[in-house]
Amino acid sequence: MFKINENYLKLPGSYLFSTIAKKQREYKSIHKDANLISLGIGDVTLPLADAVTKAMHKAVDEMSDQSTFKGYAPELGYEFLRKAILENDFKNRGVDLDLDEIFISDGAKSDSGNIGDIFSIDNKIAVCDPVYPVYVDTNAMSGRCGDYLADLERWSNVIYMPCTKETNFAPELPKEEPDIIYLCFPNNPTGATINKDELQKWVDYALKVGACIIYDAAYEAYISEEDVPHSIYECEGAKACAIEIRSFSKNAGFTGTRLGYTIVPKELKKGDVSLRDLWARRHGTKFNGAPYIIQKAGEAVYSKEGKEETKKQVAYYMENARIIREELKSAGYNCSGGINAPYIWLETPNGMTSWEFFDLLLEKANVVGTPGSGFGPSGEGYFRLTAFGSRENTIEALNRIKKI
Amino acid sequence: MFKINENYLKLPGSYLFSTIAKKQREYKSIHKDANLISLGIGDVTLPLADAVTKAMHKAVDEMSDQSTFKGYAPELGYEFLRKAILENDFKNRGVDLDLDEIFISDGAKSDSGNIGDIFSIDNKIAVCDPVYPVYVDTNAMSGRCGDYLADLERWSNVIYMPCTKETNFAPELPKEEPDIIYLCFPNNPTGATINKDELQKWVDYALKVGACIIYDAAYEAYISEEDVPHSIYECEGAKACAIEIRSFSKNAGFTGTRLGYTIVPKELKKGDVSLRDLWARRHGTKFNGAPYIIQKAGEAVYSKEGKEETKKQVAYYMENARIIREELKSAGYNCSGGINAPYIWLETPNGMTSWEFFDLLLEKANVVGTPGSGFGPSGEGYFRLTAFGSRENTIEALNRIKKI
Repeated sequence: MFKINENYLKLPGSYLFSTIAKKQREYKSIHKDANLISLGIGDVTLPLADAVTKAMHKAVDEMSDQSTFKGYAPELGYEFLRKAILENDFKNRGVDLDLDEIFISDGAKSDSGNIGDIFSIDNKIAVCDPVYPVYVDTNAMSGRCGDYLADLERWSNVIYMPCTKETNFAPELPKEEPDIIYLCFPNNPTGATINKDELQKWVDYALKVGACIIYDAAYEAYISEEDVPHSIYECEGAKACAIEIRSFSKNAGFTGTRLGYTIVPKELKKGDVSLRDLWARRHGTKFNGAPYIIQKAGEAVYSKEGKEETKKQVAYYMENARIIREELKSAGYNCSGGINAPYIWLETPNGMTSWEFFDLLLEKANVVGTPGSGFGPSGEGYFRLTAFGSRENTIEALNRIKKI
Repeated sequence: MFKINENYLKLPGSYLFSTIAKKQREYKSIHKDANLISLGIGDVTLPLADAVTKAMHKAVDEMSDQSTFKGYAPELGYEFLRKAILENDFKNRGVDLDLDEIFISDGAKSDSGNIGDIFSIDNKIAVCDPVYPVYVDTNAMSGRCGDYLADLERWSNVIYMPCTKETNFAPELPKEEPDIIYLCFPNNPTGATINKDELQKWVDYALKVGACIIYDAAYEAYISEEDVPHSIYECEGAKACAIEIRSFSKNAGFTGTRLGYTIVPKELKKGDVSLRDLWARRHGTKFNGAPYIIQKAGEAVYSKEGKEETKKQVAYYMENARIIREELKSAGYNCSGGINAPYIWLETPNGMTSWEFFDLLLEKANVVGTPGSGFGPSGEGYFRLTAFGSRENTIEALNRIKKI
C-alpha cells in the first residue's frame, strides 16, 4: 500500500504568496469596485525589451522551418546562452568559469528548490530570518527541517540567522555549525546587502567548517553601490564552497517567460565527488531544458540593445524604490532597502503585527504588500513593499498609505 | 560538514541518451564525412504547426505591450490551457475532471521525475522491463531502489515486470505487491499497447492492493486502434488510484518547446490526505509555471487548425513507422510496435547484444538507434528505432540496414 511523503503534512498552511493572492481575491469578491494596487508579490510589470521580443519572434520562425527547427536542447542549455552568461555576468567581474559549470534552467525558484536533491537529508541548513520561503519549505518537504514548532513559528532542525535592525538586516555567522548555508544578496525580502569583505567572511567560514553556501543572486542587477559583489565567486575560495543561482526574472522581466541558471563549480567537492557532476546528473535525468525560444530570449538580454533596454527597466523600478523609501520616511516610517534592491523593508507602526498591517493596508489603502512574518519569525513586525509596480500605481499607493 | 546524496553514487554510468549522444559525437569526430542518421533518441523533426507558431507570435507581441504583459502565471497553469485540455483530451473520451486536477508543467520528463517527491521513500516501485530510464533513475536518486546489482543489471528493491515476446511486450500483474506502479502506454520503448479491458485489470489490481499507478500517456496521439484507451481514467475506479502524465512533445513536436501536464484526481487519497493537494503544494513551491508564450502555444494545439496540422504530423511519423516495420520484416527481422506508437522494437539478429547491434548499425550503416538493454535487463537482445526522422532519412536508413 503506497505511503505519502509525510513531511508535506508538517508544512504550516500554504505557500506565502498563495495566501496573499487568496486574501486579495476574497477582498475583491466582496469589494468589486476596489482599485487594489499590489506592491506585494515581487512580480515585474514592464513589458519585455524589444531586443528580447525580436529574438523570440525570430526563434519562433526558426521553429516553424524544418531546416532550423530545434528539438531537445543540449542538457546544460544552449552554448550561445552559456557563453553570453560567462562573458557578461562573470568575466567582466573578474570571474572565470568553465562553460559546463553553467546550467540553464526555467528559473531560480526551481533551482533553489531542486538543488536540495543532490544533498543528503542528513544536513543541517542555516537560513536568514526573514527568508525567501522556498529555501525552508523545500528542505522541509525533503525532511531536512525536523518538526514545525507552531508556537515558535520555526522548524526544530533549522539554524535561523536573525536579520533585524540590530544586525543591520544582515546575518551574523551562526554559533551552531551548519552544513548548508542559504544566502541571498541583494536580499529578498529585506533589500539588504553586504560588501565584498563581509561576503568573504562567509566564504572563509564555509571553507573552515566544510559548509556549502547556496548563494541566490537573483537581484544582482539592482546593485548600485560599488563595493557590493555581484557574484559570490568574486570572493577568494568561493568556487570550493558555493553554488550560485541566478534568474532572468528581475533583471529582464522574465517572471512569466521563465529562465534562470545555476553555477556549480567543479572545485566544489565532497571527497572525490564533484557536486557539479551530481547536479549534471539531476539536470539530465529530471529536466529537459528551457525552451529554445526562451533561451534565445535570454541571449538577447546580453545584446547591446538588450542591455540598454533592461538597464532602463531596472532604473525605472529603482526610481519607484526611491519614491517608496522617501515617501515612507517622510510619513514617519522606519524603513531600509531600496538602494541595491527593489524591496523596501519597513517596520510596522504602533507595534502592529505584520498581518495586522497587511489587513490595514488592504482595507484602508487598498494596497497589497507582503507581511514580514511570512518570511520567518524575525520578520514579525516588518512589511515588504516592492518597486515593481508602475510609476503611477507606486505614487498612488504611497499617497494612500500616507493618508492612513 | 555537508553531506551529499549518496544515492547518486549508486547510479550506473550516465543517462542512456547522454551515452548514445557521446558515442555519436565520438564516431563523428573520427569519421568527419559520415552522414549519420539518427533513429535513436525519440526526438521530433517536423517544424511546429502554423497554428502554434502564429499563437506564439501573438503571445510574444502581448509580452511586449504593457497592457497585455504577463508576469508570474497562475500556479496550476493558465485556465485557457487547462480548459482546452479538459475538453479535448478528456471530455471527448467520456472522462470528466475538475480544472484544478490538471497541472501544467514544462514536460513529462520533469513530472515523471518530480512526482516521486510526494511519496515516502519507503515505497516499493514496480516498473516494466524494459522501461523509460527516468522512472527508475529518479527513484534510485531518492533512495527508493535499494542497491544497484551490476552483474544482474538491476536494482535490489525494484519489482521488474518483464515485457518480452513471451508476454507480448506487455507486463503481467506482479507476484510481489508493489506500492507504486509505473505504466506507459503506448509503451516507450517497445511500442506495445494494451486494450481497455487489460488496463482495467491493472486499475482493479491497484485498487485491491492499495497501489498508486503513475500512468505515462505521452504517446496517446499515436493510438490507431479502437479499443486502446487514451487515458487511464477511461477505466472505472482509476481516479482513486492513478496519476496520469501527458506531454506535448510527441503529439505536437514540443520537444524543444517544453510543455506537459499531469492529472492528480482529488479522489486519489491516502487516508484523509489528497495527493492532489500534495502535488499542488509541490507545484506551487518548487516550480513557477511554464512560460505564458508556451502555454498559448499549447492552447493552439487544440484549435481547429492546430488539431488538423498536428494530426498530419502524427500521420507522417506513423507512415515512417510503417516503412520501418515493413522493411525490417522484409529483411527478416522480428519486430513489433509501430501500430499505436512511433517506436519499432526489433530483436537483434544472431544473438547479438543490444550494444553490439548498436555498434554494428553505427559503423556499417551509419544509423543510430537505441540499445534495448539501456531500458532494462529484459531489453537485452532488442533494439529500438524511432519513426521521428524525416521520410528521406528513414527510407535511406532502412536501405542501409537492409544492406548489412
